[in-house]
Amino acid sequence: MRIVVTGAGGFVGRALARRLRALDHDVLATDLTITQGLAGQIGDPALLERLFAGPVDAVFHLATVAGGAAEAAPDHAWQVNVAATRALIDAAARHRPRFVYASSIAVLGDDLPARVTDGMPPAPRMLYGAHKAMMEQWIACQSRRGALDGLSLRLPGIVARPKAPSGMISAFMSDLFHALREGAPFTLPVSPDATMWLLSRPAVVDAMVHALSLPAIPAPRCLTLPALRVRMADLVAAIARATGGDPALIRHAPQAAIEAGFGRLPELSTAMADGLGFRHDGSLPALVEAVLADIQEEEER
Amino acid sequence: MRIVVTGAGGFVGRALARRLRALDHDVLATDLTITQGLAGQIGDPALLERLFAGPVDAVFHLATVAGGAAEAAPDHAWQVNVAATRALIDAAARHRPRFVYASSIAVLGDDLPARVTDGMPPAPRMLYGAHKAMMEQWIACQSRRGALDGLSLRLPGIVARPKAPSGMISAFMSDLFHALREGAPFTLPVSPDATMWLLSRPAVVDAMVHALSLPAIPAPRCLTLPALRVRMADLVAAIARATGGDPALIRHAPQAAIEAGFGRLPELSTAMADGLGFRHDGSLPALVEAVLADIQEEEER
Repeated sequence: MRIVVTGAGGFVGRALARRLRALDHDVLATDLTITQGLAGQIGDPALLERLFAGPVDAVFHLATVAGGAAEAAPDHAWQVNVAATRALIDAAARHRPRFVYASSIAVLGDDLPARVTDGMPPAPRMLYGAHKAMMEQWIACQSRRGALDGLSLRLPGIVARPKAPSGMISAFMSDLFHALREGAPFTLPVSPDATMWLLSRPAVVDAMVHALSLPAIPAPRCLTLPALRVRMADLVAAIARATGGDPALIRHAPQAAIEAGFGRLPELSTAMADGLGFRHDGSLPALVEAVLADIQEEEER
Repeated sequence: MRIVVTGAGGFVGRALARRLRALDHDVLATDLTITQGLAGQIGDPALLERLFAGPVDAVFHLATVAGGAAEAAPDHAWQVNVAATRALIDAAARHRPRFVYASSIAVLGDDLPARVTDGMPPAPRMLYGAHKAMMEQWIACQSRRGALDGLSLRLPGIVARPKAPSGMISAFMSDLFHALREGAPFTLPVSPDATMWLLSRPAVVDAMVHALSLPAIPAPRCLTLPALRVRMADLVAAIARATGGDPALIRHAPQAAIEAGFGRLPELSTAMADGLGFRHDGSLPALVEAVLADIQEEEER
């Protein structure tokens, strides 16, 4: 298949593009700066023309201005996350491709019931979450109209991102892995009792490739991906065990807003995604092992 | 109160601005062309500066590119319904006003269950409906963040619009009143068994003024307004009875897309709006009487 990947220079995008190429797909990768692909802004008509001049079977739209970065630059974030995303969709529509959109659990907001289920309506508090919820609507509408074959996947916390700034408030979940692996002291902005929904990068790439293979996308064309619900103290212990790192290096200085937004994730039911064959990492040890192997591979690349 | 009304030259906006002035509010009316107010495009920074330079207690945002017009000019519709609406919200936010947004039952789409209830997720098919669903999300998010005190009201079919083109596919519901009143032949694009959700203009103005008086707006800050569910054959008979018009003047040439989009409205439950004190016209004769009196008043003005 001929597949466009936006945000292909990013943490998830890089691994997805590699995997798709390994599966012998013809990948048109794009990002603001990218060596193996087309560099440019996704809202730029000239870039869109280059991406969609020839036939395209599928699009993975990962490019985004994420949580913290969006709060810091609301106009820019709207421009990328809403305006440019619409331009990308319009340009893609000429080929009616499978369109996989990297949405986020940020659409759910932070006033959550004891158990989140598929039917829960979006109630984002972050601008980023609102942008994602709005574009989920637009993609579903364009799919109903036959312009696309869209699927929005709500991504949980993906670990372990590189240490470089990502604009993501949730980056502490990744930094924890690096600290314990390197024996460096690290202070978490959440408490030991914080609970998070996590997925390793290999598992989220699995999910995206799986989305490509689904014969049909059911309504409402929007899924929360299965994720492992992890308590912070358990995560610290599991990483320490797997790396031989010293858990005493990890301190907690909970920040109320971060604890509320990223550390109070309740039980998660993803019946729709489960039924379609999406899977999380399976267990905390398996997640930690997958993440550590992924970091190792990235270093050796 | 000092109140901004956008779309104040339109069918609902005119009556709302009149009512608010009669209630001694200070009304800042705006529309593309308007004599008693500020003429301009709502996305224009200079107009927004004039509207929001002084304190504003409430905003009624009615300006829109409606259903059929949006399908005919998608870029323009996005510009007004999404981009300019966001600019208006940003400009309004400096005063944290009560912000009443004229949304539409078009957000619900046309694949409806036997009974529509408050919890039903949006599934628009028309671009217009998708724009409205997206901005409902944005207004709710901005309200959660404390930038606004927002409420989206999903309007049903409002009757009876003037005979002038409105860009609304649903205009036939209004044209029927004028035809029977004037003894003119008219062909409906739906069958006698078509069912619609209707509200008279005086009743929708009542609802908007009521929205202003609510002490607090509950989550999810989005309501489908109560509406009378009316069968087309019953509506024709009721108007004929009230006007002395001849129902034989009315013919039916159902168009599948219009019947599907506007003539298959199922049972409607609006428990949340009912609980907050919103009301429809009460009965079919009352609705017809209110509409005919409204047409008469408009003619005499």
